[in-house]
Amino acid sequence: MFQIAIAAHSSNPSEEMARKAEKFVSAIKRNDVIILLGGYWGLMKVVADRALSEGIPVVMVLPMERDVPVPEKVVRIDSGSEYRSRSIPLIRSSDVVVALGGGAGTIIEILLGYAMGKHTFVLKGNGMSSDNLEKAFPDFIDERKVTRVMYFDNVEEMAKEVLSSMDHRKVEERFG
Amino acid sequence: MFQIAIAAHSSNPSEEMARKAEKFVSAIKRNDVIILLGGYWGLMKVVADRALSEGIPVVMVLPMERDVPVPEKVVRIDSGSEYRSRSIPLIRSSDVVVALGGGAGTIIEILLGYAMGKHTFVLKGNGMSSDNLEKAFPDFIDERKVTRVMYFDNVEEMAKEVLSSMDHRKVEERFG
Amino acid sequence: MFQIAIAAHSSNPSEEMARKAEKFVSAIKRNDVIILLGGYWGLMKVVADRALSEGIPVVMVLPMERDVPVPEKVVRIDSGSEYRSRSIPLIRSSDVVVALGGGAGTIIEILLGYAMGKHTFVLKGNGMSSDNLEKAFPDFIDERKVTRVMYFDNVEEMAKEVLSSMDHRKVEERFG
Amino acid sequence: MFQIAIAAHSSNPSEEMARKAEKFVSAIKRNDVIILLGGYWGLMKVVADRALSEGIPVVMVLPMERDVPVPEKVVRIDSGSEYRSRSIPLIRSSDVVVALGGGAGTIIEILLGYAMGKHTFVLKGNGMSSDNLEKAFPDFIDERKVTRVMYFDNVEEMAKEVLSSMDHRKVEERFG
Repeated sequence: MFQIAIAAHSSNPSEEMARKAEKFVSAIKRNDVIILLGGYWGLMKVVADRALSEGIPVVMVLPMERDVPVPEKVVRIDSGSEYRSRSIPLIRSSDVVVALGGGAGTIIEILLGYAMGKHTFVLKGNGMSSDNLEKAFPDFIDERKVTRVMYFDNVEEMAKEVLSSMDHRKVEERFG
Repeated sequence: MFQIAIAAHSSNPSEEMARKAEKFVSAIKRNDVIILLGGYWGLMKVVADRALSEGIPVVMVLPMERDVPVPEKVVRIDSGSEYRSRSIPLIRSSDVVVALGGGAGTIIEILLGYAMGKHTFVLKGNGMSSDNLEKAFPDFIDERKVTRVMYFDNVEEMAKEVLSSMDHRKVEERFG
Repeated sequence: MFQIAIAAHSSNPSEEMARKAEKFVSAIKRNDVIILLGGYWGLMKVVADRALSEGIPVVMVLPMERDVPVPEKVVRIDSGSEYRSRSIPLIRSSDVVVALGGGAGTIIEILLGYAMGKHTFVLKGNGMSSDNLEKAFPDFIDERKVTRVMYFDNVEEMAKEVLSSMDHRKVEERFG
Repeated sequence: MFQIAIAAHSSNPSEEMARKAEKFVSAIKRNDVIILLGGYWGLMKVVADRALSEGIPVVMVLPMERDVPVPEKVVRIDSGSEYRSRSIPLIRSSDVVVALGGGAGTIIEILLGYAMGKHTFVLKGNGMSSDNLEKAFPDFIDERKVTRVMYFDNVEEMAKEVLSSMDHRKVEERFG
């Protein structure tokens, strides 16, 4: 499976943001794609609902503070730990990390993606706090240059790059 | 989904034990069953391979110490923590806990199942350390009587009880 | 420092049990001893209060579910995780594990002690559930024989053995 | 106790950076101050050594990947989890968070401090990646404005603010 962690805001998104998120999810549909989310509220809920309606398997890694019911089809991982702590298995378990935009939680997940050496994709231009990250860290987060954080204005372009990263991995597995 | 955590020995099982494990897995096949495992070695590998060949979805919650490759179809959760710590989300995420027999790790998972109030089923009679647990705790682990730990000699009977626990839950959800 | 994790019941103890716990704490007082506890309630509170009055440093590793105030002198570790999960750093951080008696939580901590290869001491004969563990596992928990679990009826004798384990370690460090 | 988590680079610091770190540690010495660190290497080691020579108690929360020996006087918490995961109890357990400068790990700890509502102090001007954070987030990290992240060029000034935050807390406790 190709496991894509999607970091997204915990508040309800604007209509425009919701449409972009749905577009992204539909664009990355593939036979072996799984989406990993940290909850079922805010923009994450939009992502989950679209994924489920597209038939993409969804895994949720839930924090203790928000022990919500999830749709019947979802694989539910109860982390037994707090918000930030549940982001660790979420990001470690991913092949790539995609941030659709959000606040401190989303920004932490982007940095976890970098620190764990994951390909990390950030959608910006939606008026969210994560938009600002590029000002401080336009490509690498620190001098170790573990992996490049890639920023996108256009959600289709980002989806294409995510899929290309997936294809690249498969070639590596087959011939690497 | 009905998530069944299966605790099982990390060493290679006897032929007889392996057959029992496979029998159990085939017996609990249902449309909405998912199997949660803590690794892909020893008796857990036997369980995983049978589940995959039966088309039952498998989720593995892996410890840091043993970062093994898993079959393509498996949902892989990299816990980022040590053996016993990865058992916490494994057991918390389950609807019921089934122990097919094992050592200290399996016994800890049985006790976690009890402490978290999960229906907990233990197969005994296979010469493993978990067989001894019943001598100390024939039904409840402590005076809180959170949930009864149920011991079985017969694997078919245990599978029947696990399925009945699943049906019971559904009735509860529908009419409860 | 010599870090002693003390597992103890979360309910209020009998007078007799409280006296034994206090006797134990006073008996293990040494310059370099630190006591690690998983909370400040029940029998753990008795242990903490005696330790503080003896001038023994106390570290508490607290679960999210019970975020209690602790005495000013205590080093407080907020685990950010649930009851059983907070027992992992508690036991891993210890040089030896001492169980004064308790329920499922205490029994899990004894088993964690064994699984992590710590010298593990269990006081019995106080009518608590952990008294029963010996029936199932009189010395080792499984065939790996990681470390012997030692059971005691007499609290002074147990304290002597804990101190002897400490002295033994120091000799090892000096000449090992 | 007043628990100060200090985030600092895992590489060996320049002479100048080391002097600043030592100056900071000596400046925050108080009867009830404890320093929490995530390891005993790089700039963290400089902090620990100065704290110990000043008689300030030191607690280290260690990741699994780097299980180093620590000085005899240190309280050692073995987290049982990976680098980023061990930062959770480190930051949650703190009254204030101080970043002396570092890479992705330090930046994550600053963001954790913000997300957990801790007073968070960042020393900049030392050519480290965390210097850049202010460009993206000059005061708050997101729209929730949980707590202001405070940046300092001058280490003495930062120490003064940290102490003032400590005094403020005590007044709150006494009259709040």
